[in-house]
Amino acid sequence: MIHFDRKDVDKMPYVFRINLMNSVSGYKSANLIGTKSKSGHPNLAVFSSITHIGSNPPLLGFFMRPTTEIRNTYENILETGTYTVNHIHSSIIEEAHHTSAKYERGISEFDQSGLKELYREDFSAPYVLGTPVQLGLSFVEEHPIKANGTILIIGRVEHVYIDDHLFRSDGFIDLTEGQIATINGLDAYAVPETNNRLSYQRPKPISSFI
Amino acid sequence: MIHFDRKDVDKMPYVFRINLMNSVSGYKSANLIGTKSKSGHPNLAVFSSITHIGSNPPLLGFFMRPTTEIRNTYENILETGTYTVNHIHSSIIEEAHHTSAKYERGISEFDQSGLKELYREDFSAPYVLGTPVQLGLSFVEEHPIKANGTILIIGRVEHVYIDDHLFRSDGFIDLTEGQIATINGLDAYAVPETNNRLSYQRPKPISSFI
Repeated sequence: MIHFDRKDVDKMPYVFRINLMNSVSGYKSANLIGTKSKSGHPNLAVFSSITHIGSNPPLLGFFMRPTTEIRNTYENILETGTYTVNHIHSSIIEEAHHTSAKYERGISEFDQSGLKELYREDFSAPYVLGTPVQLGLSFVEEHPIKANGTILIIGRVEHVYIDDHLFRSDGFIDLTEGQIATINGLDAYAVPETNNRLSYQRPKPISSFI
Repeated sequence: MIHFDRKDVDKMPYVFRINLMNSVSGYKSANLIGTKSKSGHPNLAVFSSITHIGSNPPLLGFFMRPTTEIRNTYENILETGTYTVNHIHSSIIEEAHHTSAKYERGISEFDQSGLKELYREDFSAPYVLGTPVQLGLSFVEEHPIKANGTILIIGRVEHVYIDDHLFRSDGFIDLTEGQIATINGLDAYAVPETNNRLSYQRPKPISSFI
């Protein structure tokens, strides 16, 4: 196996280190976060850090670095208290990835990527038209991460929209059936073709494998 | 599309809600966290919330609910300051999933699952033998989540071990080449077969799509 320790990582060139450190956690979620500023400018950005935190209340978290251009998303969430999370279907991977380009605040990544806004009653943040799973969230709390200045943003799921054909009767959403992408590292997208559901695990008799 | 709002979610039966809310974030990482108590008991547990937080310093986070049986992992991390993160290869999905069974503190999930401990010099936490990517981490900080009593645990990557054949010259780890799994919901595992790396995105001329 190839081995890098802490000192090796500290000495790595920038691009090498970000490729490595964005790959080491495993597959990541592939989502577009939609927001709108108080003054009416929509914003759309690809994120790969959206993570389940709890089911009751239903909470999702994601990490952002407020000092980069992506701060539009952060400012809009704080201004309006709402945002959307939209899953990336295999047919829009290139458009979704393009939202990672650094545009100025007044420019809409919807216009620049070709993705279309969808507005629903009583919710100011834009959803992404045609995406197979769409969530409307309200901002709950934020946690500044001391070790590197990023921020954990936590939101509560207020609305869930799911294409009918991926929804199962026990509440499971079949992401594979939805041709939903997953992200590897900074720039690789994969679309799993099959999945396998396993059963709930209970303890076996002690040391049954020995 | 099927629509659930906040009130629908509040009224859902337990299993339906946890299936839904564990599916809505998209694909999740599939990892085994290895720890050892100060008194020498090894512990192994499957986690799907391990998330990239930063590259310099290299930081990963994950969420846990300290009131469940999985607190063994939490207590061991606080006691020793170290833990490992090991990617789940397609050949050990069933063994890995079995570590979600609720065993008492004295029982080793290594013994019960058939997975093997691997110890390396100067690092007390056990790695999982044969996994394609293995990380050794040191505990950095924790954040209690007010909204539901879970805890975000943040660690610094001290060691990275990667099977040679999935490592690329620019630092990228090809998870697809490694036959590494991703998790959908609580119990479904998928192994992507292909991926596509896209280029770094720069802004296009304004409104070029309109």
